[in-house]
Amino acid sequence: MVDQHCHGVRRDDPPRSGFEQLVAEGGAPAPPGTTHFDTPAGAAIRRWCAPVLGLEPHASAAVYLSRRAELGAAEVNRRLLRGSCVSAFLVDAGPESPGLLGPAEMGRLGGAVADEIVRLEEVERDVAEAGLPAVGYAGALRDELAARAARAAGLKTVAAHRRWPGSDLFRPSRGSVIAAAGRRLADPKARLADPVLARHLLWAAADVARERSLPIQIHCAFSEDAHGDGASGDAAFGDADPARLTGFVRALAPLGVPVVLVHCYPHHRQAAYLASVFPHVYVDAGLAVALTGAGSAHILRELLELVPFHKQMYGSGCHGAAELCYLAALYHRRGLARLLAGRIAEGEWSVSDAARIAHMIGSANARRVYRL
Amino acid sequence: MVDQHCHGVRRDDPPRSGFEQLVAEGGAPAPPGTTHFDTPAGAAIRRWCAPVLGLEPHASAAVYLSRRAELGAAEVNRRLLRGSCVSAFLVDAGPESPGLLGPAEMGRLGGAVADEIVRLEEVERDVAEAGLPAVGYAGALRDELAARAARAAGLKTVAAHRRWPGSDLFRPSRGSVIAAAGRRLADPKARLADPVLARHLLWAAADVARERSLPIQIHCAFSEDAHGDGASGDAAFGDADPARLTGFVRALAPLGVPVVLVHCYPHHRQAAYLASVFPHVYVDAGLAVALTGAGSAHILRELLELVPFHKQMYGSGCHGAAELCYLAALYHRRGLARLLAGRIAEGEWSVSDAARIAHMIGSANARRVYRL
Amino acid sequence: MVDQHCHGVRRDDPPRSGFEQLVAEGGAPAPPGTTHFDTPAGAAIRRWCAPVLGLEPHASAAVYLSRRAELGAAEVNRRLLRGSCVSAFLVDAGPESPGLLGPAEMGRLGGAVADEIVRLEEVERDVAEAGLPAVGYAGALRDELAARAARAAGLKTVAAHRRWPGSDLFRPSRGSVIAAAGRRLADPKARLADPVLARHLLWAAADVARERSLPIQIHCAFSEDAHGDGASGDAAFGDADPARLTGFVRALAPLGVPVVLVHCYPHHRQAAYLASVFPHVYVDAGLAVALTGAGSAHILRELLELVPFHKQMYGSGCHGAAELCYLAALYHRRGLARLLAGRIAEGEWSVSDAARIAHMIGSANARRVYRL
Repeated sequence: MVDQHCHGVRRDDPPRSGFEQLVAEGGAPAPPGTTHFDTPAGAAIRRWCAPVLGLEPHASAAVYLSRRAELGAAEVNRRLLRGSCVSAFLVDAGPESPGLLGPAEMGRLGGAVADEIVRLEEVERDVAEAGLPAVGYAGALRDELAARAARAAGLKTVAAHRRWPGSDLFRPSRGSVIAAAGRRLADPKARLADPVLARHLLWAAADVARERSLPIQIHCAFSEDAHGDGASGDAAFGDADPARLTGFVRALAPLGVPVVLVHCYPHHRQAAYLASVFPHVYVDAGLAVALTGAGSAHILRELLELVPFHKQMYGSGCHGAAELCYLAALYHRRGLARLLAGRIAEGEWSVSDAARIAHMIGSANARRVYRL
Repeated sequence: MVDQHCHGVRRDDPPRSGFEQLVAEGGAPAPPGTTHFDTPAGAAIRRWCAPVLGLEPHASAAVYLSRRAELGAAEVNRRLLRGSCVSAFLVDAGPESPGLLGPAEMGRLGGAVADEIVRLEEVERDVAEAGLPAVGYAGALRDELAARAARAAGLKTVAAHRRWPGSDLFRPSRGSVIAAAGRRLADPKARLADPVLARHLLWAAADVARERSLPIQIHCAFSEDAHGDGASGDAAFGDADPARLTGFVRALAPLGVPVVLVHCYPHHRQAAYLASVFPHVYVDAGLAVALTGAGSAHILRELLELVPFHKQMYGSGCHGAAELCYLAALYHRRGLARLLAGRIAEGEWSVSDAARIAHMIGSANARRVYRL
Repeated sequence: MVDQHCHGVRRDDPPRSGFEQLVAEGGAPAPPGTTHFDTPAGAAIRRWCAPVLGLEPHASAAVYLSRRAELGAAEVNRRLLRGSCVSAFLVDAGPESPGLLGPAEMGRLGGAVADEIVRLEEVERDVAEAGLPAVGYAGALRDELAARAARAAGLKTVAAHRRWPGSDLFRPSRGSVIAAAGRRLADPKARLADPVLARHLLWAAADVARERSLPIQIHCAFSEDAHGDGASGDAAFGDADPARLTGFVRALAPLGVPVVLVHCYPHHRQAAYLASVFPHVYVDAGLAVALTGAGSAHILRELLELVPFHKQMYGSGCHGAAELCYLAALYHRRGLARLLAGRIAEGEWSVSDAARIAHMIGSANARRVYRL
């Protein structure tokens, strides 16, 4: 199985509060008197990850965390990453953090190959902080994108998540980019917020992606607050409906650059529709699978209502906690197996078709699109 | 069980047309040749409420209404409210109406305790109609909110339903409030429509809620037309997606005021997401449970995909007809029981966890948040 | 059963690439190395249509197409249209095309009666191309609409799909129509894009519909690109949420003109809500049933959560391939039968109620609304 979209997990053993925040969206602590273990993901960790650490299913949170500390982060990560039975990880290293495993380490611990996905906003920040004159911004960005892309399996943007560009996501003029770069370079530490530069970054990335035949992942729906980079500081969740990307996706079509819509929940049906209409659009259910745990089968079922079998991929979207990686893989397999068994039992799909569909979604589509 | 969000039911026995309009959204009669009994809620009334009145299941509408008249409204209300097995009602008295039971009567007939939820827009209307000078509007509103809140369990707004304020729901300046109040006081009988005063009302309520540790309920998704106050006269249903409240919810976070998103269908997944990300956000499925009847189990299932177990509450959202109160409680119990039995059968949740989750959702969360 | 909303199917035998594009939304070929048969609709064709052509279930795509060519389009269309067991087709002839069967031929091959649905945008284009002065545009449009409506069962617009008019879909002034007509008539071959004229067309049609007691179908959600008319060239999919039509639907209410929201997926719950609130609003699930195949039962289940039983209709929304017509009818019957059997088994609905509901949805509602 190919996990076409994940992040590094923490290399150390977090305290309870830190662990709880890793397994909940938003990055905030649970209200007083409650715990993030009382969530679908928390229940799933106690049910399915506990046995991987040698505990009974449904072990209490305290017992789980105590056993986790006893084994140590390296052993826990090794068990959970290997247990996910993933043979290739594509890792968005995101904002670099010494506390998170890099792609090579993810591969080594997980017994898998690993490739890097370049986060566009990180490249842009590096360029903005380099102290260039505004007139050199676009060229430096292009060069840096090309250099980073040369050793990567794909590109990824969280721009769509921050604020959907909507239908006016056209390529900005050279003059407007220079003007905007001037403002940007006066405060390079700030998060990229200028809409002209956000559009410019997407189109510069699209050019590089075309040259190198790389896909671009677009983060939809789920917030990145949990990732600690404050990315969604001013975005409304509702802005993240991938349907709002229709105009951008249509404009990208002539370039032939594959676009992978990741996460997407609760707008996964809209993502499936885009994948069914545009030849270059792909989807995964991302972090929604691990976070909804026992409820995830229904989400996969909805995604599969419309998505062509050659357009869906597996991507855990996990970040920080190897538990999420394990759960995503487990529930992907279980949910898909249950759906396929149902389709076979109803006489809808033949056994060989069902096997072929599972293979396409689990690995073949990703191997084709990322040229693994 | 705590019904954390309901309205009064009619104290008299409505004629057939009046009853039909009580049990359908929108308040309009069914088209000629059809009946509102031919709806999921209508079928559920014939199935489940008929036996409470001593009839066979699936009694015809005519038989049902005839038996209802025979027993009389007081006895019907008593049977249905008690039958819902609710031990505490939190009643939004809404626009006062002599035809509806007040909180104390709801409690007495239902064999339960009852507390009041203050409807913000009613307080504002009372203040607007008091004939003050514009400069005294803000102070009088604050005082009246504080006085009403002193004997209430929580506050509630339907402003979001009328027109989502979106991301610009910031606290307005004192000057802009005085100016807007001047215009408002020239036509105090009108529905509050000024966006400055709508925002002011929300923030004034937030201040009072913080002082008294009260939650604020925000009416999402379902229209209030059925409630006869014409509240949704110019609002598009699509404006009611709770995701559009993200900015407001984020701005409220530092105050620590709990926000309860009520109804939410068909945007309950977005509400669940907000509840999972923001420590102060809670949800209920409201009137969607009674109105969808046999289909409601699936809605609860979707809500439970992501919502933390300590963030979901039970609220019938019922209004006018005690049948809706009874059906909401019945389908909440049945839907949750079926989901929990499934989770246990699949080995996902332990029996004790399942019992604990049912208890949290059915009453413990509301008792904690409303300090009952 | 009444198929209240379909299009003509191709009279000739398309080559494989042409057939694949007929059974996929968007009208684009599948990416290299993939096939549109690897979709839910493709799998359903191999499963269910193959036996209609005398093949084993799950026949390969190549075998299916070879057998299709062997039988010839007329025989294939006859078998599939008859097999759908539809007794009346209401056919949107759309942009006329000699390659597609007209209403009369659809009826003859399908062993059914057939009536025409007038596509508003086609009438407008004919008027625009007639070379009138701007001042005569509105009168000519009204006359042409009335003439076409005189021999039709209903009207249909795809305007909403192109760009939702939102809440400002009011009737434009006479002066603004003349001014806009002047610009329009300078380029009559272009697609109607002027918002004033789009609104004028809707209201002119509403007047005619009222005079003749005809319903207006509004195409929601699904793109028409697959129909080859480029209708959705600049529209975002997200614009197609029927909830955005709330204002227009409310404004139409006093005219008493029935509005039928067609397709609607993935916003069918919003459509169901509108149908539950407004006496003149109806819905069908359209093409979503055939395109999602084995997954369609769940969509029908969601639609039936809230929609009054007297407001849902059957409409295949099929276009081009008779397979879609056959699959829509098959899955409608199977999905509804499964849902009804479940409701009966759970004791929710009586057997006679279930039979009555199936009859209302399958034909009685359409016969009443279209006066068949």
